[in-house]
Amino acid sequence: MTMPRKVTVIGAGEIGVGWAALCASAGWPVAMFDMNPRTTERAFTEVPRRARALVALDRATQGIVERGLLEFTQARSLLQAVKDADWVVEAIAEDAVAKQKLFESIELVASPETLLTSSSTALPPSEIFARCRKLDRCLVTHPLNPPELIPLVEIVPGERTSQAAVQRALDYLRALGRMPILIRKPVPGYVVGRIAAAVWRECIDLVLQGVIDVPDLDRAVSLGPAMGWAAAGPHLTYHLAAGEGGVTAFLQHLLASFEGLWDGKLATWQRLEPQQQRQLTQAIERAYAGKVDMLRAARDRRLSAILRALEQARTAPPS
Amino acid sequence: MTMPRKVTVIGAGEIGVGWAALCASAGWPVAMFDMNPRTTERAFTEVPRRARALVALDRATQGIVERGLLEFTQARSLLQAVKDADWVVEAIAEDAVAKQKLFESIELVASPETLLTSSSTALPPSEIFARCRKLDRCLVTHPLNPPELIPLVEIVPGERTSQAAVQRALDYLRALGRMPILIRKPVPGYVVGRIAAAVWRECIDLVLQGVIDVPDLDRAVSLGPAMGWAAAGPHLTYHLAAGEGGVTAFLQHLLASFEGLWDGKLATWQRLEPQQQRQLTQAIERAYAGKVDMLRAARDRRLSAILRALEQARTAPPS
Repeated sequence: MTMPRKVTVIGAGEIGVGWAALCASAGWPVAMFDMNPRTTERAFTEVPRRARALVALDRATQGIVERGLLEFTQARSLLQAVKDADWVVEAIAEDAVAKQKLFESIELVASPETLLTSSSTALPPSEIFARCRKLDRCLVTHPLNPPELIPLVEIVPGERTSQAAVQRALDYLRALGRMPILIRKPVPGYVVGRIAAAVWRECIDLVLQGVIDVPDLDRAVSLGPAMGWAAAGPHLTYHLAAGEGGVTAFLQHLLASFEGLWDGKLATWQRLEPQQQRQLTQAIERAYAGKVDMLRAARDRRLSAILRALEQARTAPPS
Repeated sequence: MTMPRKVTVIGAGEIGVGWAALCASAGWPVAMFDMNPRTTERAFTEVPRRARALVALDRATQGIVERGLLEFTQARSLLQAVKDADWVVEAIAEDAVAKQKLFESIELVASPETLLTSSSTALPPSEIFARCRKLDRCLVTHPLNPPELIPLVEIVPGERTSQAAVQRALDYLRALGRMPILIRKPVPGYVVGRIAAAVWRECIDLVLQGVIDVPDLDRAVSLGPAMGWAAAGPHLTYHLAAGEGGVTAFLQHLLASFEGLWDGKLATWQRLEPQQQRQLTQAIERAYAGKVDMLRAARDRRLSAILRALEQARTAPPS
């Protein structure tokens, strides 16, 4: 398999910086471009910091990271960024029109061989690439935050994406240590976005209703269902929960309880009104104010420790 | 703090066996009772097996586990099970009437000092304890599966539960290495059940729609959002996702995307029809058939590895 000679990341926010840090940590040359010079400037300290943090977290090798960072560059124009890239990673704001215009411009200057991927969290490829003519090399590769630590990447091909482009994206992502999963139908939100939207609505609702406060909710999810699902996905969790009878027995015993909640007990509101936004923001800021850098570093330590633990458990002999 | 001289677990299904294994692994005397003699018999091999597995998983000490198992007994009647217990843990099926009748009977034979807790996943305490007269010592302590590994326990007091009983439950659970979280209002499903119901409905819907198959869905959740939420709960995750601007910036950039999904894109069905149950069951059995013991052992290895990783990350010096 051929690795990209150059990756271009467009958009220097959290996700773009994460993609750049990840690619640099694999020793790959990365060019970055953002319309906002201040954002680009910040990325120039953030990408090396986050790539080097992967060494401290035992997720990357110092020599390879430094080799990659030697070839980390800032492009002065979209043309300069894209013209000799093998892979262009779009990571701008989640705005369909902005993405359409960007890909229209990229198409004008990119080589016909260049793989074009969007980091969109929810938009269908038909919308993102609506202004492109050459659609065979266009697809969504949706990472989670932070992209350099969480392995999952959702692969969402459009109707006219070629099998070769999907395979190339899979190869690149696996070479970066990612776990790409193919989404078979481009439903809004794909898989992760829908699950995340369902979870966050319940979490917001529980806090706004006064059932639980922000730090307890976060602890409960972390040390409860999330830990369980990190060790075994939801279907396997319930298949194992009822003993020998498997999911059939589980449904016999507990489907009524789930249906009791599906039947009007869960949150169904569709908008977070300004007053609720303020209430939520205040509750979250009260819980975590002034400690963001420390909390992010602690989160990254926990993430890398979980990754290492899962890798070791996978290779351990069955007990 | 006084530890219970004896814990009685009523109901020898997966959750009851887990509670018994957990208490025995702490060296506590445990009595078990189940109306079904076959279930009781199976528990008599399962509780020692699961308590000893905690030693192999590095979650318990052999000498303490064996001391506890020496005092693990099977009660022949509810009276025998309950009469000298300091803590009675109900873990029968999720059936409000059955739980009401059981607690009515327990009240007749238990000492007035005995703490009574239900492992219900969703019912309000007012319903579970509806036939009890002495409500100050009654509350819900909802564990996840398997209770001996997942730390979270939801504490749901009823309106008349005493502060002393809540404190005693907290003390017992913390002595067992659990992470009890107080639920302030007894909403149906509490916190975990609502989040789990929202997640599972989406997961089922995605599989039945053909967006993703069962093993890929489970992998995607495990190596994606669940791993993220295990390292930082949902509110903290989104507070950290937008960089310096915190949750305010996150809402500015991504609330519209969440609202786009809340607005009719997520699953809203309330019943899983027999035909869909068959389809789901077949898909899950096809994915995991014939490997349940192996999958459970692997899940438990991953869970204990994650627990150890989080404990080590917590005590590690900040990098």
